[in-house]
Amino acid sequence: MAESLDAFLERGRVLVDAALGRWLPTARTSPPLVAEAMRYSVFAGGKRLRPMLTLAAAEAIDRSAAGLALPAACAIEMIHTYSLIHDDLPAMDNDTLRRGRPTLHVVYGEGIAILAGDGLHAEAFTLLAESPSTDTSEIRERRVRVSRLIGQAAGPAGMVGGQTIDLQAAGQVPGHAMTLDADGLQAMHARKTGALIRASAVSGAIMAGANDAAVDAIDRYATDLGLAFQIVDDVLDVEGSAEQLGKSAGKDASADKPTYPSLFGLERSRALAAECVDRALTAIASVGLTNGQLGAIATWVVSRRN
Amino acid sequence: MAESLDAFLERGRVLVDAALGRWLPTARTSPPLVAEAMRYSVFAGGKRLRPMLTLAAAEAIDRSAAGLALPAACAIEMIHTYSLIHDDLPAMDNDTLRRGRPTLHVVYGEGIAILAGDGLHAEAFTLLAESPSTDTSEIRERRVRVSRLIGQAAGPAGMVGGQTIDLQAAGQVPGHAMTLDADGLQAMHARKTGALIRASAVSGAIMAGANDAAVDAIDRYATDLGLAFQIVDDVLDVEGSAEQLGKSAGKDASADKPTYPSLFGLERSRALAAECVDRALTAIASVGLTNGQLGAIATWVVSRRN
Repeated sequence: MAESLDAFLERGRVLVDAALGRWLPTARTSPPLVAEAMRYSVFAGGKRLRPMLTLAAAEAIDRSAAGLALPAACAIEMIHTYSLIHDDLPAMDNDTLRRGRPTLHVVYGEGIAILAGDGLHAEAFTLLAESPSTDTSEIRERRVRVSRLIGQAAGPAGMVGGQTIDLQAAGQVPGHAMTLDADGLQAMHARKTGALIRASAVSGAIMAGANDAAVDAIDRYATDLGLAFQIVDDVLDVEGSAEQLGKSAGKDASADKPTYPSLFGLERSRALAAECVDRALTAIASVGLTNGQLGAIATWVVSRRN
Repeated sequence: MAESLDAFLERGRVLVDAALGRWLPTARTSPPLVAEAMRYSVFAGGKRLRPMLTLAAAEAIDRSAAGLALPAACAIEMIHTYSLIHDDLPAMDNDTLRRGRPTLHVVYGEGIAILAGDGLHAEAFTLLAESPSTDTSEIRERRVRVSRLIGQAAGPAGMVGGQTIDLQAAGQVPGHAMTLDADGLQAMHARKTGALIRASAVSGAIMAGANDAAVDAIDRYATDLGLAFQIVDDVLDVEGSAEQLGKSAGKDASADKPTYPSLFGLERSRALAAECVDRALTAIASVGLTNGQLGAIATWVVSRRN
């Protein structure tokens, strides 16, 4: 019998959390305070969407490839977590609550929060350079390819660039304000969240040994999935309450940031997200990758309530 | 005739600056604001000590290896620059002037400064994953080894960990203040600046194909060089003026941070730095690597006036 999405997510979460626990620094390997701060944010109860995509893409290519893809899955979660820590800082989104808990800078101060983010960023690339230790030339080549891909997705052409545009669009950079139309909003999200979501799925596929056609199809799948995820995020921000989301609802709208609901309305936004998921499912069907969890993850992304 | 240190430093600087210019993002590849901010700090007139060490170590092993070591040299300079940007932030050292120019957050705001630092951090590892493009299995293995080494040096066990202890020692983390004695001060610097200086030299040696004995000797050389560099930095901070250093002199002392002069006095500090350089020279002599620039760089580090 096929594994249910819930069973896959539970299996994946256990695998990823155990690996993160092993690979993150401890008070024996690093100054205790920064190790503690890094762990506070990594184990803050996130959805683990990105590492689940990495594992699902790897298993869609080769059912036994989860172990090969696990370092990339964990490295991406470390990068995602560092970006949340830095985005929450007073100079950026100034969030004091995330997933129902005080943000890192509220607990340890801004200096330690900046450093814990930097530490996770460095650890991610260290991990990619040293694992998996199955060190054949072929696996080493995949690791280098994934390391480059994740670096590009996280850097100025990707996540960092998207966050730059987001700050400008929110009017937070004096002399460099920007106004985003629908295309500009989509381009911003493609960098800010889309690039790393694409890298998550593609890394899993590459580590599992996917051919070029499969890598390309999974990239298209993840591009649409990432966009759907962002649209639903915007919709939930309007609809949700602080309790349900664990963060301040309506915050984006109140900061005059453009959002999908503010540009298209709620109903059309939901429809756009559903269209993205249809395209994502078509992409993986085109290369026969429908028997794993990628399809179920896409469907879950649009139906989620938090 | 042997190349003079000045000629080497000029040749190296031209090589590194041109490569950084090629490899850093532009307004075509990334949102213009973040690319501009990254370049502002990278081209702020730094000494380029770290990339010079990388090139000198590579050429000490193989006179034609500068090209192979250049990506690592530039990646390390990007990481060093990101660390300066983040260290200068109000939540850390709160410096408004560096090398005689306003610090990045003064020019672009704190949000963009955090992002430009993050962008340099990601670009460094992207570069290590894609260059040099001489993509034999042997070179790829060296790249992975260097990537891991630099990640460890930059991360919580290295630079980020050292900065954490520095913040605690400066009393900037409420509830986590630390008092450093001489050993604690040395351990802090070994992480904060020593780890990346060691990685700079060792990366060059590895990229040039050094054997284990040579790598080990260059590591010992760089460990002592890094310590000497830090002691001299502390001495210059006491002796220097704001004009000579391009930063606020006496700042460390006024913040009640422990320094070598505050623990040992100026004269003993200078003697300690000279002892370090002697040990560094002995280390490279032990493997016959005295014909390149490593020795001259060590001598320069203790004699410099800014």
